[in-house]
Amino acid sequence: MSSNRFGQLFSVTTFGESHGPAIGCVVDGCPPGLALAPGDFAHDLERRATGKSRHTSARREADEVEILSGVYEGLTTGTPIALLIRNTDQRSKDYTNIARQFRPGHADYAYWQKYGIRDPRGGGRSSARETTMRVAAGTIAKKWLLERFGVRVHGYLSQLGDIVPGQAATDAIDWDIVESSPFFWPDAAQVPELETYMDALRKSGDSVGARVTAVADNVPPGWGEPVYGKLDGELAAAMMSINAVKGVEIGAGFASIVQKGSEHRDLMTPQGFASNHAGGVLGGISTGQQIVVSTAFKPTSSLRLPADGLDTDGNVVEVITTGRHDPCVGIRATPICEAMLALVLMDQALRHRAQCGDVGTVTPRIPGRFDV
Amino acid sequence: MSSNRFGQLFSVTTFGESHGPAIGCVVDGCPPGLALAPGDFAHDLERRATGKSRHTSARREADEVEILSGVYEGLTTGTPIALLIRNTDQRSKDYTNIARQFRPGHADYAYWQKYGIRDPRGGGRSSARETTMRVAAGTIAKKWLLERFGVRVHGYLSQLGDIVPGQAATDAIDWDIVESSPFFWPDAAQVPELETYMDALRKSGDSVGARVTAVADNVPPGWGEPVYGKLDGELAAAMMSINAVKGVEIGAGFASIVQKGSEHRDLMTPQGFASNHAGGVLGGISTGQQIVVSTAFKPTSSLRLPADGLDTDGNVVEVITTGRHDPCVGIRATPICEAMLALVLMDQALRHRAQCGDVGTVTPRIPGRFDV
Amino acid sequence: MSSNRFGQLFSVTTFGESHGPAIGCVVDGCPPGLALAPGDFAHDLERRATGKSRHTSARREADEVEILSGVYEGLTTGTPIALLIRNTDQRSKDYTNIARQFRPGHADYAYWQKYGIRDPRGGGRSSARETTMRVAAGTIAKKWLLERFGVRVHGYLSQLGDIVPGQAATDAIDWDIVESSPFFWPDAAQVPELETYMDALRKSGDSVGARVTAVADNVPPGWGEPVYGKLDGELAAAMMSINAVKGVEIGAGFASIVQKGSEHRDLMTPQGFASNHAGGVLGGISTGQQIVVSTAFKPTSSLRLPADGLDTDGNVVEVITTGRHDPCVGIRATPICEAMLALVLMDQALRHRAQCGDVGTVTPRIPGRFDV
Amino acid sequence: MSSNRFGQLFSVTTFGESHGPAIGCVVDGCPPGLALAPGDFAHDLERRATGKSRHTSARREADEVEILSGVYEGLTTGTPIALLIRNTDQRSKDYTNIARQFRPGHADYAYWQKYGIRDPRGGGRSSARETTMRVAAGTIAKKWLLERFGVRVHGYLSQLGDIVPGQAATDAIDWDIVESSPFFWPDAAQVPELETYMDALRKSGDSVGARVTAVADNVPPGWGEPVYGKLDGELAAAMMSINAVKGVEIGAGFASIVQKGSEHRDLMTPQGFASNHAGGVLGGISTGQQIVVSTAFKPTSSLRLPADGLDTDGNVVEVITTGRHDPCVGIRATPICEAMLALVLMDQALRHRAQCGDVGTVTPRIPGRFDV
Repeated sequence: MSSNRFGQLFSVTTFGESHGPAIGCVVDGCPPGLALAPGDFAHDLERRATGKSRHTSARREADEVEILSGVYEGLTTGTPIALLIRNTDQRSKDYTNIARQFRPGHADYAYWQKYGIRDPRGGGRSSARETTMRVAAGTIAKKWLLERFGVRVHGYLSQLGDIVPGQAATDAIDWDIVESSPFFWPDAAQVPELETYMDALRKSGDSVGARVTAVADNVPPGWGEPVYGKLDGELAAAMMSINAVKGVEIGAGFASIVQKGSEHRDLMTPQGFASNHAGGVLGGISTGQQIVVSTAFKPTSSLRLPADGLDTDGNVVEVITTGRHDPCVGIRATPICEAMLALVLMDQALRHRAQCGDVGTVTPRIPGRFDV
Repeated sequence: MSSNRFGQLFSVTTFGESHGPAIGCVVDGCPPGLALAPGDFAHDLERRATGKSRHTSARREADEVEILSGVYEGLTTGTPIALLIRNTDQRSKDYTNIARQFRPGHADYAYWQKYGIRDPRGGGRSSARETTMRVAAGTIAKKWLLERFGVRVHGYLSQLGDIVPGQAATDAIDWDIVESSPFFWPDAAQVPELETYMDALRKSGDSVGARVTAVADNVPPGWGEPVYGKLDGELAAAMMSINAVKGVEIGAGFASIVQKGSEHRDLMTPQGFASNHAGGVLGGISTGQQIVVSTAFKPTSSLRLPADGLDTDGNVVEVITTGRHDPCVGIRATPICEAMLALVLMDQALRHRAQCGDVGTVTPRIPGRFDV
Repeated sequence: MSSNRFGQLFSVTTFGESHGPAIGCVVDGCPPGLALAPGDFAHDLERRATGKSRHTSARREADEVEILSGVYEGLTTGTPIALLIRNTDQRSKDYTNIARQFRPGHADYAYWQKYGIRDPRGGGRSSARETTMRVAAGTIAKKWLLERFGVRVHGYLSQLGDIVPGQAATDAIDWDIVESSPFFWPDAAQVPELETYMDALRKSGDSVGARVTAVADNVPPGWGEPVYGKLDGELAAAMMSINAVKGVEIGAGFASIVQKGSEHRDLMTPQGFASNHAGGVLGGISTGQQIVVSTAFKPTSSLRLPADGLDTDGNVVEVITTGRHDPCVGIRATPICEAMLALVLMDQALRHRAQCGDVGTVTPRIPGRFDV
Repeated sequence: MSSNRFGQLFSVTTFGESHGPAIGCVVDGCPPGLALAPGDFAHDLERRATGKSRHTSARREADEVEILSGVYEGLTTGTPIALLIRNTDQRSKDYTNIARQFRPGHADYAYWQKYGIRDPRGGGRSSARETTMRVAAGTIAKKWLLERFGVRVHGYLSQLGDIVPGQAATDAIDWDIVESSPFFWPDAAQVPELETYMDALRKSGDSVGARVTAVADNVPPGWGEPVYGKLDGELAAAMMSINAVKGVEIGAGFASIVQKGSEHRDLMTPQGFASNHAGGVLGGISTGQQIVVSTAFKPTSSLRLPADGLDTDGNVVEVITTGRHDPCVGIRATPICEAMLALVLMDQALRHRAQCGDVGTVTPRIPGRFDV
């Protein structure tokens, strides 16, 4: 039981505060023989990085990953892989005035009640800076899943405030469009509208929520543990553990409330499933369909707009957050959601072969699209 | 790592298949000295029971709980508490014709792909019968939380298909109304409408989804672990582990996507928080406000309506489910959601005092409503 | 974290008090497809049973195992296997006079200090009755290890007081002799001497310690986790968790203190290892040699000989234990040690294939006896 | 489940290879408010350090600990504490000639069979270099145990080859003598004999085993979990996880085999226990007496004396270890055993207060020495 560790057999233990000397993680349980180099982390870290566009926070970190252990002559050895990133752009002075204040919507008050002490610099441990290491660890999982099983993980922004992509764009997502968009947005035609919206939002000093959808293709059927280690249960825990997340849904999610059973249940045909309301999971176990998980991000509470708050003596004070903050934290959360999806899948892959052996060893198959 | 165990310090390990000889659980980590008797379980098990009204499944079990261990002279001793319920109303013949079929929307195919073998009687391990033991274990948690901290856990049905309770009824819930309703519904005026709706649904042979909201009052601030053991993260895992759940949200949940930050962030005043969009959790830690978690239940896939499916040889077959099934499984899921909320809170209470000591020992306080 | 659960991927959660209604366990993580029937448990439970000969305790239990879950049509399904044994021969009256006393050498005082409450009937949870379920769970592990890998687990009594078997008898153990002996003793010629010793001991009202050695043949190289999940580390935890155990050693154990390095290190030759001081484990990982673990059992503290003790008020009282007790608990601990060895090996087998794949998939081999 | 993590509620995850860029650990679960500075680690690391005297290995590392997280303004904050030590004295060239050889008595062959790949530089992950982080983490545990409960942890060398300290020296240990001895030896009169012995041993190119005894005073009664989380069970796992350990005993240990029950059981008197054969643990739970755990270290297998071995192709090769190695690894293992004892006690302290509340809250007491 560790509140800073994620995963059972492929586990990631993270550490570090926003403005401490470094952040890092220890990845334990990675199979031996996987090629891994410091450069492998750059792509996803850049996608997550602050400063990708004018629509996200202006904090800029080199985010150079150092591999401290677990890799020998370019291959993983089966021993723990420690990753380290030094914090270089800390600007602690931005935060000194809030050391005695509770910012509304932030973890300040909760941490203070829990521990009786807190590191106020940039949110300390509660900062989204921690998610950098999730993305780094997720890179390892993505790599192994792709090489070993052909599993591919993707993510996109599926809602920004009340704007949603066009149905055609989401029915058949063009991942090149998503990647070339400053918003991980699948509908190229809407980008100007989004830019206008975000510019106005930033000027207003306010923020807005978003929805991120992450998917995984080529996941073999049979991954996931029934009852309390369900694939969807682990995904829910994974996504809800990301900063600012307030909701998680699998497949049809909350829309299934208004569905009839005859509509929701995905029929099986010799050519495969006829629909995917389930989001690729039945009874907590993968079905071989695309895994689909969506996550609701609240609007960030770090606003230039002043608000009344309390200080640690219970006095009313005016709180203004003057640091660097995204008006929509959901945008660059996309690679974080991908990483958490990859981490859950890799963990479940190892759990599956622990109990049931390597894929293909004991599992019966039926012909057609179901075969893996 | 056990896929049949929930919780870290107050853990529940369940076992049993729908039509096996018995179901049961082992509750480990219960503090010593709590009064506990077999009769304590009756109330919530009855609330969950099949057959409460004509709107839920007709399966009738006595659901008599036997305490096998961990209680001496009416008090818990700190050793594991094993609970056992014999299955008496099994009717296995209802299910024999589907042993070689994959029912659409059910776990049959996923289990078969995972294990290469499955117990087809009533869904075996994937049956919601397992949730009986969650409710039983939850009873212990509810009792301890109430006696030790005054925490009260409640649940209600907050949506049935596209029907929602009136705003006034949910703004100030009258729990007597909820408990006297056959639907755990907070708006007494709507019950006739719901009965008409459910009667028509049952006649049609179809089913519909629902939303359940569970709340906890008097939770002290400071419960919950940051990062991966977050209170909301554990709640998400807990709820998503319930059969038929497709989504979980905390506080404003998915509605926070369209909120502005200035609207969402809950301001603190000397009289307490001015709103509760957060659902009582910030940074993964309780704030002292009401904990609010909502859960989306899909429509059950067990329908009298026939559908094409596949058998284990890949042939198309017609599947009709003739057993006893609820047209809306969300209704009697209400006490299950309560139980999971109680289990998470109790586990977090023990985790909190492990690291930070008993409440009141190390935690600073500010005056007013925040004080506990 | 559960103090009543053993194992990570093949886990056993036990429950039950000596004189409660039942004892039982939940075995989670067993691979699907293993043949298992209630009769499989009888052999080892009989070997462990009280009352096997006049040299062990006279308590007689039917110890009939009921399989409550996890087995369908004679095969394990991958879901948790719950086992139950009703307590039938409880004789609680034997123990009523010690409810307010702390028996010297027993857990009474420690439990009372920990929990402030304890079940005094037969030692409650601290009774060796709990080990019945270890033996039952160990039966499943032994069966899978044998069928899947040809691993065989054996145990014998390697010292009783100051009596040790002849060197020739232990150099090449004849397991038929061990099994036909009332003492699990490998040297048939010594049995009369042992019987005389034990008769005198029993008459004296005193007790004596013993050493049990458990071995496993055909364990593939590569099982065990480095650093904190070492095969020998898990074995140490397993054996030390058995009632009355005060020491554990692997291979040469404490004798290695006086060895020179040139003597202790086992040389490798093309025909295999030239010796086995290591006991089959190097760096926490199996080498393919026989696993050898020895365990020291203290003399039982339950004696007819009176002793001064304290009661719960701190007063001096005379304590006499009048229940049924073995003058040497180590004798029937032999199958318990075997069971713990099997449980550790099975868990490590699953952990190995989680990270490294099934045996033969990724592991390099060199020719000769090292090959598996 | 992580093979590189120790402890449940106060957990230490270590990483790093002997000749990689760094070693480190993440300590999770430390209570908030403990004063901690980089300088706190120096004392025990120096005691463990190679190069303390001519009788231990000549490798010299600065072993400067950097605190990367979890401490703010000199106090722990409750978030994970990451510690880092850069490897500066690596001399990899010493080891290149053994990259294709299996050194007898080392983990080379076992790692190669497990992973199919290994880092041969200085033993890689299997090097005792890893224990540096145990000592560092143990420093935190020692500090908290002392400040919060007055618990003091000590260790000494209790046997070197066949030399044992005089009875008078061990009956009442003078810790100043132990600390001023180059061998952590409690009998000052024997130091010249030991020096002569070790000089001869080093000249011979051979090595010898040793026994280390670690003790803890002022441990409150009630710490430890019954059955599988026993205090002595966790100690056995902890000690057996140290490199080169082949045996562990609690209290009388293996000597209890030849004891009678009337001799072994420690009588309770109004003045306290009359003896301590139990080593401070009954039923897996502390009794308030001194905790005593002894550990057997094998002679190191790294010898200048040549031996026939095998290479990875199965050919016979002559193996000579030319690096820096201790002729008796047990000597500087003393602070490692202390650290593991402290880590186990701290973890159990947190586990105890999770279930039973802070000491003094629920536990009954009897007068006299038993009171804490």
